[in-house]
Amino acid sequence: MVDINGQTRLIAHLGVPTESFKAPMIYNPWFAHRGINAAVVPMGCDVGDFPDFLRLVFRLRNIGGALVTMPHKVATVGLLDQASVAVRICGACNAVRRDDEGRLVGDMFDGEGFVRGVLRKGRRVAGASALVVGAGGVGSAIAASLAAAGAARIGLHDVSAGAAEGLGARLRQHYPACEILTGSKDPAGFDIVVNATPLGMRPGDPLPLNPERIDPTTLVGEVVMKVQETPLLAAARARGCETQVGTDMLFEQIPAYLEFFCLPSTTPEELRRLARIEY
Amino acid sequence: MVDINGQTRLIAHLGVPTESFKAPMIYNPWFAHRGINAAVVPMGCDVGDFPDFLRLVFRLRNIGGALVTMPHKVATVGLLDQASVAVRICGACNAVRRDDEGRLVGDMFDGEGFVRGVLRKGRRVAGASALVVGAGGVGSAIAASLAAAGAARIGLHDVSAGAAEGLGARLRQHYPACEILTGSKDPAGFDIVVNATPLGMRPGDPLPLNPERIDPTTLVGEVVMKVQETPLLAAARARGCETQVGTDMLFEQIPAYLEFFCLPSTTPEELRRLARIEY
Repeated sequence: MVDINGQTRLIAHLGVPTESFKAPMIYNPWFAHRGINAAVVPMGCDVGDFPDFLRLVFRLRNIGGALVTMPHKVATVGLLDQASVAVRICGACNAVRRDDEGRLVGDMFDGEGFVRGVLRKGRRVAGASALVVGAGGVGSAIAASLAAAGAARIGLHDVSAGAAEGLGARLRQHYPACEILTGSKDPAGFDIVVNATPLGMRPGDPLPLNPERIDPTTLVGEVVMKVQETPLLAAARARGCETQVGTDMLFEQIPAYLEFFCLPSTTPEELRRLARIEY
Repeated sequence: MVDINGQTRLIAHLGVPTESFKAPMIYNPWFAHRGINAAVVPMGCDVGDFPDFLRLVFRLRNIGGALVTMPHKVATVGLLDQASVAVRICGACNAVRRDDEGRLVGDMFDGEGFVRGVLRKGRRVAGASALVVGAGGVGSAIAASLAAAGAARIGLHDVSAGAAEGLGARLRQHYPACEILTGSKDPAGFDIVVNATPLGMRPGDPLPLNPERIDPTTLVGEVVMKVQETPLLAAARARGCETQVGTDMLFEQIPAYLEFFCLPSTTPEELRRLARIEY
């Protein structure tokens, strides 16, 4: 760990409960390794205190940014002075910094992490087609980042048809060139297929989509992190598909956060190697 | 350094500017050494934000306490639900914790550190006489702790006669058995003499009192930390007096803070040995 001193820049890690937080054990060993005087510090803020606390923590002279997690991602959006397109599409924010004028600027990097992982595997996103199953927070973020990266066609499905339709409408508004399809979760014909539902976390969960309809050339991605190879990924791999595990999205988004906080950046591989946790 | 994770108890170090803070480099290496999952984290809070920030930082689920330093020690007194006698006498507070009912409890350990140092040198405070030159924050704290430890007679002097008189009145109110003398800074006849003024920090400062009037059996203490052996201490030592340096007060008060925060405690020697700073 880096030695904390009076020059240390704080990255507030805001959420509650804090007990399951992983970010401190990923960022801080890397900060120490690279000699960067910064520290991710968990702050277990309750919902009722969050609006005032967010404002005040960003008035600290040694604040460097905030990682926002459950249950504050949605509330944060209304507290920003400037929200990225991804934040506006998702209605959720997981990264906040203060700009030179003291304004709070927010972004959302779940989807960016997913897209960076796909690109790192040598796949194209620009011009590609992608199916996102699950239109909640993380699914919205992934769809928004796929659209931002130039996906030509995005299929959206959610058990709540209204959620998929609403996300589709917001995507069309910001990315009119991207074709948005809603209603089907048939993966046939998509270059990229991603499970953005929690299905696969628990033994006995049904599959989020029918893997027999996936083309062998499709990249199949997962957001579930608790299980490394979910039944969906196992089925996709059995069909010859390339796959992306949930923790790829996690480690790929950290360089995006570092850039956002105006800190030096690194690779997901180095972060994984130094992290003080098992993945 | 201890690895920060989701279980880490935060000790907020509140003051501004933070650049000269030393406490993180004293507490944190010791926490790591003893396997205590806690971290002192500097938070550079401005004066205008302090009342709200103090309240909110103590609502964090993982807060373990606060070290309060300049310029917030006086403002903190008015924000407490319960103040120790030392706080009420000094009108300043440098330690805050939350009790089981969620109330903010404050104490002041500068004087406790001074007294612990005197006792560790095998000197008696109970029944002793002491001269405190300087009736500002630290002088008030030292006088309050000497009185609490049973000093029979305390002499107070300040360049502002009103400051010495005011402190004397507050001491008499809380410790009616202790004889309080104000007005003179003649050290003759006192068992303990302490410089609680900043004189001695800079070359060319006048002496805070006349060392030629100090008895050789007197213990002479200092609050100046920037210079290890101030001209006063050098003169006292030349007269055969035992002395106490300013950093003794610093390291002696840390165990008092640890006990206040309901953490395991240690000795000043161990803290000095592990500290990541030069003293």
